[in-house]
Amino acid sequence: MHSPRQILIPTLVRIQPGALDQVGAHARQHDLRRIVLLVSQDLPELLTRRLTGSLEANGLEIQSSQTVLQASFEQAQSCFAALPAGAQAIVGLGGGKALDTAKYVAFLGRLPYVAVPTSLSNDGFCSPQSSLTLGGKRRSLPSRMPFGVVVDTAVTHAAPAALWWSGVGDLVSKVTAIHDWKLALEVTRTPIDDFAALLSDATVFQFMGHPIRDPAGEGLLANALMLNGVAMEVCGSSRPASGSEHLISHALDAVSLKPRLHGLQVGVATYLVSRLQEQGTDLIRSVLERTGFWEAFRDEPLSRREWVEAVRIAPTIKQDFHTILSTRDCVPEVEGLLATDPQLRAVFID
Amino acid sequence: MHSPRQILIPTLVRIQPGALDQVGAHARQHDLRRIVLLVSQDLPELLTRRLTGSLEANGLEIQSSQTVLQASFEQAQSCFAALPAGAQAIVGLGGGKALDTAKYVAFLGRLPYVAVPTSLSNDGFCSPQSSLTLGGKRRSLPSRMPFGVVVDTAVTHAAPAALWWSGVGDLVSKVTAIHDWKLALEVTRTPIDDFAALLSDATVFQFMGHPIRDPAGEGLLANALMLNGVAMEVCGSSRPASGSEHLISHALDAVSLKPRLHGLQVGVATYLVSRLQEQGTDLIRSVLERTGFWEAFRDEPLSRREWVEAVRIAPTIKQDFHTILSTRDCVPEVEGLLATDPQLRAVFID
Amino acid sequence: MHSPRQILIPTLVRIQPGALDQVGAHARQHDLRRIVLLVSQDLPELLTRRLTGSLEANGLEIQSSQTVLQASFEQAQSCFAALPAGAQAIVGLGGGKALDTAKYVAFLGRLPYVAVPTSLSNDGFCSPQSSLTLGGKRRSLPSRMPFGVVVDTAVTHAAPAALWWSGVGDLVSKVTAIHDWKLALEVTRTPIDDFAALLSDATVFQFMGHPIRDPAGEGLLANALMLNGVAMEVCGSSRPASGSEHLISHALDAVSLKPRLHGLQVGVATYLVSRLQEQGTDLIRSVLERTGFWEAFRDEPLSRREWVEAVRIAPTIKQDFHTILSTRDCVPEVEGLLATDPQLRAVFID
Amino acid sequence: MHSPRQILIPTLVRIQPGALDQVGAHARQHDLRRIVLLVSQDLPELLTRRLTGSLEANGLEIQSSQTVLQASFEQAQSCFAALPAGAQAIVGLGGGKALDTAKYVAFLGRLPYVAVPTSLSNDGFCSPQSSLTLGGKRRSLPSRMPFGVVVDTAVTHAAPAALWWSGVGDLVSKVTAIHDWKLALEVTRTPIDDFAALLSDATVFQFMGHPIRDPAGEGLLANALMLNGVAMEVCGSSRPASGSEHLISHALDAVSLKPRLHGLQVGVATYLVSRLQEQGTDLIRSVLERTGFWEAFRDEPLSRREWVEAVRIAPTIKQDFHTILSTRDCVPEVEGLLATDPQLRAVFID
Repeated sequence: MHSPRQILIPTLVRIQPGALDQVGAHARQHDLRRIVLLVSQDLPELLTRRLTGSLEANGLEIQSSQTVLQASFEQAQSCFAALPAGAQAIVGLGGGKALDTAKYVAFLGRLPYVAVPTSLSNDGFCSPQSSLTLGGKRRSLPSRMPFGVVVDTAVTHAAPAALWWSGVGDLVSKVTAIHDWKLALEVTRTPIDDFAALLSDATVFQFMGHPIRDPAGEGLLANALMLNGVAMEVCGSSRPASGSEHLISHALDAVSLKPRLHGLQVGVATYLVSRLQEQGTDLIRSVLERTGFWEAFRDEPLSRREWVEAVRIAPTIKQDFHTILSTRDCVPEVEGLLATDPQLRAVFID
Repeated sequence: MHSPRQILIPTLVRIQPGALDQVGAHARQHDLRRIVLLVSQDLPELLTRRLTGSLEANGLEIQSSQTVLQASFEQAQSCFAALPAGAQAIVGLGGGKALDTAKYVAFLGRLPYVAVPTSLSNDGFCSPQSSLTLGGKRRSLPSRMPFGVVVDTAVTHAAPAALWWSGVGDLVSKVTAIHDWKLALEVTRTPIDDFAALLSDATVFQFMGHPIRDPAGEGLLANALMLNGVAMEVCGSSRPASGSEHLISHALDAVSLKPRLHGLQVGVATYLVSRLQEQGTDLIRSVLERTGFWEAFRDEPLSRREWVEAVRIAPTIKQDFHTILSTRDCVPEVEGLLATDPQLRAVFID
Repeated sequence: MHSPRQILIPTLVRIQPGALDQVGAHARQHDLRRIVLLVSQDLPELLTRRLTGSLEANGLEIQSSQTVLQASFEQAQSCFAALPAGAQAIVGLGGGKALDTAKYVAFLGRLPYVAVPTSLSNDGFCSPQSSLTLGGKRRSLPSRMPFGVVVDTAVTHAAPAALWWSGVGDLVSKVTAIHDWKLALEVTRTPIDDFAALLSDATVFQFMGHPIRDPAGEGLLANALMLNGVAMEVCGSSRPASGSEHLISHALDAVSLKPRLHGLQVGVATYLVSRLQEQGTDLIRSVLERTGFWEAFRDEPLSRREWVEAVRIAPTIKQDFHTILSTRDCVPEVEGLLATDPQLRAVFID
Repeated sequence: MHSPRQILIPTLVRIQPGALDQVGAHARQHDLRRIVLLVSQDLPELLTRRLTGSLEANGLEIQSSQTVLQASFEQAQSCFAALPAGAQAIVGLGGGKALDTAKYVAFLGRLPYVAVPTSLSNDGFCSPQSSLTLGGKRRSLPSRMPFGVVVDTAVTHAAPAALWWSGVGDLVSKVTAIHDWKLALEVTRTPIDDFAALLSDATVFQFMGHPIRDPAGEGLLANALMLNGVAMEVCGSSRPASGSEHLISHALDAVSLKPRLHGLQVGVATYLVSRLQEQGTDLIRSVLERTGFWEAFRDEPLSRREWVEAVRIAPTIKQDFHTILSTRDCVPEVEGLLATDPQLRAVFID
């Protein structure tokens, strides 16, 4: 018998200004009454107070509230081991580290998880994976789609611009990731999931309708990153969201003296890779320019030497993961592009 | 226990030029070997031959091949009653009537269904509903998401322009449908599904990246309409795809001497309703202009009188279905708009 | 990716004396407030009144209440076409005909369905199929598992004994059906689903713990028949519930001057087939004796001639359906058994 | 919208003599080609060789094979961290420790898991939980239903008799567990899932059809324990499989100088609890006698003092878990029963 394909999607989705103060009402509506809270360590106390206020105003019990210090399997494990009896939901508040950890605790405890990101620096807040270290090594671990996603776009709008640019960088990477996926199909017969590819692709265009940093644009970015996460769920892999541009960023994390935010590295790498792929460059250039992305490097340009080294290492990072970087030695081309492409030249130094 | 939300999505998705000739290969890959074919009655014989050729070249058995004369429950029932023993899949080829019927036959027989639309005149080719008459009355019947969607964009590109415009009209209607849905939330507490709304909304923007009638643009339109169908599956209703602009179109089907294609009526109604809603007009106007949509009425303008009558009837068509038309008597406003709005004036006569 | 296997099971299950009066409370608890009722035509009015009383006492609206005259696709279609707007659930009350029809109406309308059988004459009240005529021909149509099953064992206990025996006959048939399924595996490589087979098999043994016609025994029979239905859902076919003994019964429906209740025919055929299969006879004999099953034929014995004819026809009834009857010409053996087996001799006349 | 209830069930189920040698064929059939093996430390080498032989004969790659020393979260974590790239399935071979660990590794890695138990000492081989220590404390952790269950009944038949009795003890515990669940419903309104309760209950009766230690009886026990696991999946809790008799066993693990096998303790506790509940005793007594269960304690009787102490502690072990032990102080009754009940007297000493 042919069983149809089913995917998990978030049941509760709210993306709007002021949504932070509605988390309690939403949780109560879904009968989640005993809540465990996991919060980023560096979060403005006011945000935490607004969330706890919203929960308490709705008569919900905050069984425990814990600060997440690091995004590691081991931290998630210890939170899981200490889960109070009778917990009905995990709520994660803050940036990527807290949210990836909270999502994993909920996965281990098989509890509904509500993500409340306070910035939009990557697409992890609504994906079926958690990026955690395990034994000190960063890994992308199978986890589970959130039950709920609540994005207060006024809050994310107040976050540092670098986080917004990082989200933008992670978003455009879909253009090169999908092209790499198609290359892999041709060479290694890795099957491509058209539905996931199309969904992932759609998100960039939706954002392009208004790539401006105001609450509306924050909403579009949130939505686009969320649908990317869903695209990963669709095909059960990170392929529609992560290609050679992510490999380069991972390599940079290893070789760079001072790695930048994930999405910032990824955004630059996406532009660079699109030049190698000879596709998508116009679209990517347009998104990056209209969002002011390149300003992120004005005060502190990137190191040409480190990037060349990263491109050299990148193809060795993941086994059985064919990308444009596997098709030829791209280092000479990259050296040329860093020296001649106007966008790239402007943000690199030797 | 909180059960997560699961949705059905198509397993097989191919949207590209030449895809028609690959249907057999895809079906074989999914082990669908005994095929029942349902084909639009007015289809160029070459298209049917290409499909059957593709199935036969892959060693698949075409158990029966039938022409669909009308999109009715009764026709679907008789196809279902006559299904050959051992059938493993239904393949529908052609326009909306054949596909809605084929989808319903597959639903009744609980068989995998592969949709092969030859034009993109509406979003029905990948939705969980079938628009069929039942006892002579048009109904939107619960059906099931297709197992596969194969769109040969070279084929759809060769279809009459009016069908393409119809698809464009059905696509932009999401902008007003979602606004109506939000209005209903405020008034009647009909719950809105943010995820479905966001997904539906995204599709218009993706199409806006290249709203041109070439194979690439056909691909974008196909993808956008497909994701709309998925949005309906997400929330289990047609709300994200159908609001007051659809009511007006349904009313026109009743009052008009010569009803136009569904999507053509819907497209004009969408523009009109956006004026009443005072939102979305710029986006809708831009899509309709860039696609040349208004040309569809050049030779045969619309009747002002019929439309005013349709707007008057529209709010009574569906019970418990709050839209902008329920908020006030919109007839006078509509009369004014038909007389003064430049876009509308140009396509209406008395 | 390996997708796990998921099956639908009823959400609401109540099997106990007095359950009829609790239907309203259960429906309200699941937020099913607008109810469409389908009732067997020959049902004691008191039962219908108890059900409607229970619904009304819980503030639920009975939108319509209809008597089912025949178990046909066409009747289900007309009920479906006439479904009131806003219906939230179908409740079926009565015997097999009403319940198969109600289940199919719910399937067509994609509405939750609650089965309230008033007798236990077969396993159809909780299966994913509906036995309906379509164009005058009896068919087993794909349908959907009920949302709820409520069996008032005091009510089923008050039903005529023949219905109870019929349910017993349908239950024991699992023993021969599963053996036929295994035979088919050997010969035609039809895959067997061990999980479904084991589940189906378990039900006979559970019933054997107390095969007595009292409320407890009614509960065991209800449970056993319900799990059989689930076994069909597990493997997506009727194979674990229906083998050559069902073919013989279908043949009898065609050749017999006066066909008996489905389960009565099936029960006798099961015993007969077990002799041909040379397995399971002791268990089957024991169940039939301890339940007094054979008494059902005391006043009106079966016709030896008709049964021999039915056995002759049976293997031709279903295509691609290998059973013990396909392995050899069983007619001579059957003639011998009807003449010599003590159990069979006692219930047959020439 | 009412979403139907779906449960996960094993896709691959084989319970028969010689099944161990077919694991490779089954895995290949499901396209699981790169296998990670986890094996009990004390397993006869011949069994491991038969399994690896079966895998290799079918051209499958054994990427790694590891011995499980303890059933701990930490061991599972280290296996998970060391999973070879490209692994497609986890196969667990042996007793409860190895299988619970393997199931958890598969859960963490979201990989299909095939359980190959070599004894039937409890119902853990096909349940959605893993019994592991976490930080040194035994916990029942959410895990995932196996993809496959392969029981070679000739192998389990050759295991020590104490393991078989342990499985029998775990099986009969359903009778008291379900009664405790019903008590909890009355007192604390903990909802009971009738479907799960009925399924769980059915398994004891199926086994009663042939409670003999031969390959057929091993098959029945395997099936009964497997369906118990499914019952847990149905209701998302261990309630249908574990009541006060399990609390007593957990307490014994803490207070006893020499705890016995889980199922041996549970079996005796089940009999004892049935006396307190005043229900089910005859059925339980009959199963225990016909299987020779009491012989397990002939050489080494149980300590009356330890058991009285365990009964005293038991109600404090789990929060919000109402059972017969919560209804009153049962210690005096238990002291009386241990002194007077013939079955109990025979296996206890002071």
